[in-house]
Amino acid sequence: MKVLVPATTTNLGAGFDVFGLALDLFNEVEFSFDTKETTIESTGKYASDLKDHNLFFEVFRFFERKTGYRVPPVRIKQTCNIPVSSGLGSSAAVIVAALHIANEGTGRNLSREDLMKLAVELEGHPDNVVPAFTGGLVVCYQNGSHLDFEKFEIDLSLTFLVPNFPVCTNEMRKILPEKVPFEDAVFNIKNSCQFLAKIAAGKIKEALKYVGDRLHQNYRINGNKKMKEFVEAILSKNPEYWFVSGSGPSVCSNINDFEGIPYLKDVLKLRVNNRGMIVSE
Amino acid sequence: MKVLVPATTTNLGAGFDVFGLALDLFNEVEFSFDTKETTIESTGKYASDLKDHNLFFEVFRFFERKTGYRVPPVRIKQTCNIPVSSGLGSSAAVIVAALHIANEGTGRNLSREDLMKLAVELEGHPDNVVPAFTGGLVVCYQNGSHLDFEKFEIDLSLTFLVPNFPVCTNEMRKILPEKVPFEDAVFNIKNSCQFLAKIAAGKIKEALKYVGDRLHQNYRINGNKKMKEFVEAILSKNPEYWFVSGSGPSVCSNINDFEGIPYLKDVLKLRVNNRGMIVSE
Repeated sequence: MKVLVPATTTNLGAGFDVFGLALDLFNEVEFSFDTKETTIESTGKYASDLKDHNLFFEVFRFFERKTGYRVPPVRIKQTCNIPVSSGLGSSAAVIVAALHIANEGTGRNLSREDLMKLAVELEGHPDNVVPAFTGGLVVCYQNGSHLDFEKFEIDLSLTFLVPNFPVCTNEMRKILPEKVPFEDAVFNIKNSCQFLAKIAAGKIKEALKYVGDRLHQNYRINGNKKMKEFVEAILSKNPEYWFVSGSGPSVCSNINDFEGIPYLKDVLKLRVNNRGMIVSE
Repeated sequence: MKVLVPATTTNLGAGFDVFGLALDLFNEVEFSFDTKETTIESTGKYASDLKDHNLFFEVFRFFERKTGYRVPPVRIKQTCNIPVSSGLGSSAAVIVAALHIANEGTGRNLSREDLMKLAVELEGHPDNVVPAFTGGLVVCYQNGSHLDFEKFEIDLSLTFLVPNFPVCTNEMRKILPEKVPFEDAVFNIKNSCQFLAKIAAGKIKEALKYVGDRLHQNYRINGNKKMKEFVEAILSKNPEYWFVSGSGPSVCSNINDFEGIPYLKDVLKLRVNNRGMIVSE
């Protein structure tokens, strides 16, 4: 059996903790329960960046604790196509794949919505895991156990610049200030709503005018020397739009000239994936 | 000739300075240029609340300064159906009507978009005047001379509680803090985007779950003793949703029991108007 889970980008500039977008780049995970011991084998471009396979085991234990079902031994072969620790949802992809495998191994007792809620609880926020399940642009809302979202399908291709240094999501969250200028809050409300209004009206190119952010990106960029140099080099190309993917370090921008951008490891031109996780037998 | 301009409500809780909504309640303005002197006559329920007719003249002078055309003498008879100084866009309605009259009197040289830009400049923000022109729910964006908006037609009826005390919009703006908690900014981004996502998906009732605000309403309510008593009495009815209309003092809420609510002057049950300003010869 096989499951393909897409990469995801979040925030899209103004829409902090709200927008999540699935991309046409997948971690492919083959799995089979005809084994006595759980084993995980990783191949693919980003396999060597993985520190360990603990996340699969963590998810299985979490699933068992939450559902009471016991995940049987499983042989897993994953092809890692999503850059690791880069703000493109590689952990969310593992969480979603592992929950799917756990559910398959225990009799498919949980619905997609159940799995989604477990994934949100594990990840701590819905904006990567929900679009990994559903595809498309997802407007996420979570408040305690209340999870709500709306999905918009969009036809769009985006360029992601992936640098060779990692950032830690949790540390990036700590960098955010306790208070922000009132006008900055209003700036982000205006941009995120106008972005969404344009998406809903089918004006995708116009939507990209409204990714500007004042709430979180600058704090993150100024809190990390390499990140600052990386973003400044991108800005020196005068892009029409740009935003930090998730909490970074990858940046999405429509530039074509990458000369002189320090730390640049990969350039990924990715279409929006409107289908979400793909399951095949 | 006659022009009917709708009442408007703005912010809708979370969407501060972004959302504007036209309502099925109109100021009716008849006008005729067969006169030697400009006169303004007001009738209707709220005519006695008007302090003077200066706003019409101000708009005419502004129009003349901006366009170079000279507004001829005009006889105006307005029927004031929109409560004055109540957060329901009565000034915006006068501005829009006056700009329409000025344009009619000077040869219809300006497009609706031109008039809209003048109206935004006069009012200082787009969220009342744009829906007064267009109808519907409008997601507004203004940055200098750049005006952009998207309109969504919605089928919805709302109840507005209008108190007998006025608030001054400009003073209400001054009450707003310079800095706000980061989490409050995120709260409003989440709610305003989820509200809009539900509207775009045609889930109007669900949208109303997301009018909650932490950015501006409490500062305004706590800054005015009467407003505080008025809102607290409404909240004591445990409404499913509520928000301050514009910068107040009117409040929109789905309550049906109005007993014991102090200062209550009017209860207006209004449908959303999706058509906007109506012009008839």
